[in-house]
Amino acid sequence: MEKKIPYKIYLTEEEMPSQWYNVRADMKIKPAPLLNPGTGKPLTLEEMQPIFCTELIKQELDNDTKWVDIPQPVLDFYKMFRPSPLVHAEFLEKALGTPAKIFYKFEGNNTSGSHKLNSAIAQAYYAKEQGLKGVTTETGAGQWGTALSMACQYMGIDCKVYMVKCSYEQKPFRREVIRTYGGSIVPSPSDTTQVGRKILAEHPDTTGSLGCAISEAVEVAVTNDGYRYVLGSVLNQVLLHQTIIGLEAQAALKKYDIKPDILIGCTGGGSNLGGFASPFIGEILRGEANYKIIGAEPASCPSFTRGKYAYDFCDTGMICPLAKMYTVGSQFIPSSNHAGGLRFHGMSPILSELYDEGIFEARAYEQTQVFEAAEIFAKAEGILPAPESSHAIRAAIDEALKCKETGEEKTIVFNLSGTGYFDLVAYKQFNDGTMTDVIPSDAVIAEALSKLPKVGNE
Amino acid sequence: MEKKIPYKIYLTEEEMPSQWYNVRADMKIKPAPLLNPGTGKPLTLEEMQPIFCTELIKQELDNDTKWVDIPQPVLDFYKMFRPSPLVHAEFLEKALGTPAKIFYKFEGNNTSGSHKLNSAIAQAYYAKEQGLKGVTTETGAGQWGTALSMACQYMGIDCKVYMVKCSYEQKPFRREVIRTYGGSIVPSPSDTTQVGRKILAEHPDTTGSLGCAISEAVEVAVTNDGYRYVLGSVLNQVLLHQTIIGLEAQAALKKYDIKPDILIGCTGGGSNLGGFASPFIGEILRGEANYKIIGAEPASCPSFTRGKYAYDFCDTGMICPLAKMYTVGSQFIPSSNHAGGLRFHGMSPILSELYDEGIFEARAYEQTQVFEAAEIFAKAEGILPAPESSHAIRAAIDEALKCKETGEEKTIVFNLSGTGYFDLVAYKQFNDGTMTDVIPSDAVIAEALSKLPKVGNE
Repeated sequence: MEKKIPYKIYLTEEEMPSQWYNVRADMKIKPAPLLNPGTGKPLTLEEMQPIFCTELIKQELDNDTKWVDIPQPVLDFYKMFRPSPLVHAEFLEKALGTPAKIFYKFEGNNTSGSHKLNSAIAQAYYAKEQGLKGVTTETGAGQWGTALSMACQYMGIDCKVYMVKCSYEQKPFRREVIRTYGGSIVPSPSDTTQVGRKILAEHPDTTGSLGCAISEAVEVAVTNDGYRYVLGSVLNQVLLHQTIIGLEAQAALKKYDIKPDILIGCTGGGSNLGGFASPFIGEILRGEANYKIIGAEPASCPSFTRGKYAYDFCDTGMICPLAKMYTVGSQFIPSSNHAGGLRFHGMSPILSELYDEGIFEARAYEQTQVFEAAEIFAKAEGILPAPESSHAIRAAIDEALKCKETGEEKTIVFNLSGTGYFDLVAYKQFNDGTMTDVIPSDAVIAEALSKLPKVGNE
Repeated sequence: MEKKIPYKIYLTEEEMPSQWYNVRADMKIKPAPLLNPGTGKPLTLEEMQPIFCTELIKQELDNDTKWVDIPQPVLDFYKMFRPSPLVHAEFLEKALGTPAKIFYKFEGNNTSGSHKLNSAIAQAYYAKEQGLKGVTTETGAGQWGTALSMACQYMGIDCKVYMVKCSYEQKPFRREVIRTYGGSIVPSPSDTTQVGRKILAEHPDTTGSLGCAISEAVEVAVTNDGYRYVLGSVLNQVLLHQTIIGLEAQAALKKYDIKPDILIGCTGGGSNLGGFASPFIGEILRGEANYKIIGAEPASCPSFTRGKYAYDFCDTGMICPLAKMYTVGSQFIPSSNHAGGLRFHGMSPILSELYDEGIFEARAYEQTQVFEAAEIFAKAEGILPAPESSHAIRAAIDEALKCKETGEEKTIVFNLSGTGYFDLVAYKQFNDGTMTDVIPSDAVIAEALSKLPKVGNE
């Protein structure tokens, strides 16, 4: 007899994963290594140590260990907000009138408002274990900064956050959450760093970008004793920690014999899609299953769909290592009209390699399309989604509507990575009808790509 | 063998209650009936029909039916955000160093941010069933207005919300959520109603109160065809719907053989404590168990601790029925410095009668004490609580600290009714050290109580 699928599937504590999954171990072609922009050679552990926590560098460089034990203090913290439910979106199915089965993994039910807490607590743990005083970071939409401040508070270390200026101004309440958890916040670009002063001199009116904020946070980490820099996306280590999402989803699907056809996540730096889809991609790589996997990105910052697979700086200030990734260029500054996160010019090297091999596809969406999907979802399923996550919702709705046309009963699973409770300025624009779509011209992207470094690309 | 208690207890769909519990059926002395202020006689169904939905009036008047079936469409909607977890607050226990066992029922994990959705969907359902066009209501902190707009959108009826002006101004983002769900919002007092214009003429600088907003919403309901007024607290029917909280909590505790000693909820109009504690109070009334039950109220609006048990108007405009309740007077306007909801002058007639009989106790807290507790909780348990719910947290922490002194291992269960994601203006005040406590003088309360109606009190 088939087990009745509940509206929400929660794993029990016993069913929870106790290891992260490293998809690189199953990749035949490994993601390209980070390069030292000075020498053009792969960065060594020693070279990275002034910037990053040692254990995290080891995870960054380890392409072989398939399963990594989650440290007990991290598992303890996970209990606070995990397992997240896998929800059968039956209200959305009904609203769309689709024969498709839609499920979403809901990562937004925690005070940081998103999946970012999964990696934040791991990174704070390793920093604490190393005896560090604190960490520095950047935050775009604010979820990562909030998550890191919560994690650092739990581990008892300091947290300095550089927040992209337009978000800092649009989301004053995010700042207050970060402050409640004891984190300090500076709008970026700022005059507190050399690189910030340089960017401000060149672009006095800039509203900032993740790339700028990264440069500042890195500078502060390397120039202050006992501090290291941590990052909420892009890096291999972050994708590793975020696989808790996909592993839980896999276990929940398996528990009820649900076989997905299509898996969807939004993509900014890649932690969302990477964390959610990696365990399923592993099945594809091992020849055990086949899925259609879709990365949904903003048309305003279209790394996959209009970028180039090349070595590039991870930051605007060009002080970070070079990563081989899909990029629209480190000098590309996305429009400040864009409502959510996902404003990063590059993309996870792991996902970039997998995309280049055709393991998954990518789609770019304009923001009014995305908010239309957000509203449909909010009304049907009773959750106000984050603008970032709403890219995945858009793709899921589009796939479900295709099924409505063809009559196919496909099973669609997407990652609802966060809630939109701090994004009401954007919702107001949408409700007022004043939201505009922001799509860079070919010339703007070509100009940014013309500034790719020579190192690694010759 | 004792079952290991998980950090979060979720009921399965099969274990979910399918009926609400009417505590009045177990009360020897029933709560006093609502009176017609003109005649001084108990209001009849016919008299109430211009204001309220018929089925809800029946529930209001029914002191005898112990179990009320939850309609299937309401159960369907409950699936979206229920069951809510019962959480073992082990991180808070550790932070406090207490031998007490602390649990909380977490009602905040939905887009309305609180337990209010439990009654909103029931009321919207009965309005729809009656063939109404829509409903009117008031909202203080905004949770009720948000919940009702979500519920009305789901049922496909119109929703007009009068929002207490100081909240309207302090919480612009709440308005946007209500708008996303298709509700319309007017700051109260407003010039859209007779009673609003009168209040504005007498108190031009008022920042409003729940009492004013109720008067306006009622006026709009009775003067518009196909509309009725609905209320998010105070009334018997609301407490009935909210018992889903206590029934779930009871089932979750029973599942793991946890025997509570102390049960705590915050009190504004009573829906929170009433919904959470009623099923446990029923056990006390039936002589099956004994619990210490605590209602935690704000010192700025101390209905239980400094009010009088008397007949009073439910609204400032004195157009509503009279209810016998603990009240600081319908003409009492709480300080606008007060940060959260719980600003209502009166209290649920059911809870008032039970309190008068000594079935539970009440405590009043100043707001800085409350935010101190909120911060301790947020840091320990990773959830930013609503100011309202933080009154219950304060009481729970105080009880746990008493256990630390005495070494007693009491089991404390409180209702965490909501999250503080829309209360960051208040958190900012607290973080900045600019929050003040607001306690009305004896003279102010005596003055307000001197204006109690003669009807019902002679």
